[in-house]
Amino acid sequence: MTPIYDRVALIGLGLIAGSMSLAMRRAGLAGEIVGTARSADTRAVAAEIGLVDRVTDTVAEAVTDADLVVLCVPVGAMGDVAAEMAPHLKPGATVTDVGSVKAAVIAAVGPHLPEGVHFIPAHPLAGTEHSGPRSGFAELFDNRWTLLVPVENTDPEALARLRDLWERIGANTEVMDADHHDLVLAVTSHTPHLIAYTMVGVADDLRRVTDSEVIKYSAAGFRDFTRIAASDPTMWRDVFLTNKDATLEILGRFTEELFALQRAIRKGDGQHLFDYFTRTRAIRRGIIEAGQDTSAPDFGRGVKVK
Amino acid sequence: MTPIYDRVALIGLGLIAGSMSLAMRRAGLAGEIVGTARSADTRAVAAEIGLVDRVTDTVAEAVTDADLVVLCVPVGAMGDVAAEMAPHLKPGATVTDVGSVKAAVIAAVGPHLPEGVHFIPAHPLAGTEHSGPRSGFAELFDNRWTLLVPVENTDPEALARLRDLWERIGANTEVMDADHHDLVLAVTSHTPHLIAYTMVGVADDLRRVTDSEVIKYSAAGFRDFTRIAASDPTMWRDVFLTNKDATLEILGRFTEELFALQRAIRKGDGQHLFDYFTRTRAIRRGIIEAGQDTSAPDFGRGVKVK
Repeated sequence: MTPIYDRVALIGLGLIAGSMSLAMRRAGLAGEIVGTARSADTRAVAAEIGLVDRVTDTVAEAVTDADLVVLCVPVGAMGDVAAEMAPHLKPGATVTDVGSVKAAVIAAVGPHLPEGVHFIPAHPLAGTEHSGPRSGFAELFDNRWTLLVPVENTDPEALARLRDLWERIGANTEVMDADHHDLVLAVTSHTPHLIAYTMVGVADDLRRVTDSEVIKYSAAGFRDFTRIAASDPTMWRDVFLTNKDATLEILGRFTEELFALQRAIRKGDGQHLFDYFTRTRAIRRGIIEAGQDTSAPDFGRGVKVK
Repeated sequence: MTPIYDRVALIGLGLIAGSMSLAMRRAGLAGEIVGTARSADTRAVAAEIGLVDRVTDTVAEAVTDADLVVLCVPVGAMGDVAAEMAPHLKPGATVTDVGSVKAAVIAAVGPHLPEGVHFIPAHPLAGTEHSGPRSGFAELFDNRWTLLVPVENTDPEALARLRDLWERIGANTEVMDADHHDLVLAVTSHTPHLIAYTMVGVADDLRRVTDSEVIKYSAAGFRDFTRIAASDPTMWRDVFLTNKDATLEILGRFTEELFALQRAIRKGDGQHLFDYFTRTRAIRRGIIEAGQDTSAPDFGRGVKVK
């Protein structure tokens, strides 16, 4: 298969970059994949396991002659990385990213990029609770969605090429604007993560009182929250700092609904509770029908038996 | 293997009863397993698939001559079922239940039971988002916990026998008092479920505005919540109505923490967010080490690829 880009540079070598590298290799989408990371340990691991074709010590080296540069660092670090790499970008190259927030990334990265470089922000909606250079796998994006968020006057050809890359990596793609992206993600990802973190934090406080009961008895529902709340802290700190408005808006709706249910519990209004719980069942069916989750009970998870 | 009980009666034939029946068969723990359910459809399905050895039309028939009676109906229905079966219970029989709340079940069921019948409430901490007579499977309780909540003056021999049953069904067992049970479950199960229901309800409201985006893009975190929020509405309504105090207490702590995080977001306090998210990661490790969840990324779920 002919590569889509002769040279791809991955800046940051965590779960997403690693999975992209393995998926690009699987489909022969890049002539050479170069990668770098701020941490020397991460670079050493990536080199040791052959995660990319070549590991460089600096961002400047990594982006030199690259046709596609992918920023795979936490959202809060993207502005600095963009400033650092800008003088070394090849004219005509495409710069993209994989950040979970788009308006803030556009504001942070855009101003640093020289004329003649295409900037096409993107966000693959895929991940696991694991992070680091050993956590990637080629199938991560299969049948998941990658949202492309082109800025004004984006070159249609450069966009089509990046979209082709993501589709041959295995993802479905959709184009949307940054503000809409940030609102949709506040609903489907950012607020759920904050809530999961909160619930786990509350349980952790109580754990100190009740020994290890919270852990022992987690199969009753709580353990699902802990998976989400085990995600990378730096990445999530940056998400909330940079998608503040949309997250606060959805959080406001969430607490409003929560208080209504709390009031129904206090007043013993069983009908309100029953109706609410019936309605939410349907959305699960929709997700399974859309191929976005398994219908196997309990996610089909094979918990190791003693 | 010698059966532990000659005849076991299951009242209600949903996920828990069905799984108990299959697990008791697997280990040869009951001479005969009799079952009944309020719904004629449920009884017909159970008979058709041979879920139990014998399906009866009435509770009275089911409990006649049973050595162990297991109430597997929603918590709110247990009092009525207890009143209905009481005159037909065999002297020396043990009555137990599988309800998610214990103090309310003890208050509702206890007064109906005649002298000479052992009442030993219990709660297996296991389940899936599926319900009904076709949803059971023998492995559901393997390495999960079943909490036994004996009332005052419980016969130690009857307790040991029930405990033996649960352990040979595959579960770990622990004895605790009803109030403590209800508080622990408010943390590990009831509040997480309410929060998941709430988040899914909020997203469902927004779904009407944003077409099917919430479903399409659910892999970013939200879909985990929908599994929990697809659980049986009647069961969960009853849980909240009957474990009101503990749930409201934990909800109070939850909103307090959530507001602190919300404030950190509003003020841009990244350190607070980072510290909080780092702390919650440890509890996930504890759950995996305790054998209560899989360490495979994303629960190891095999989502069907297009």
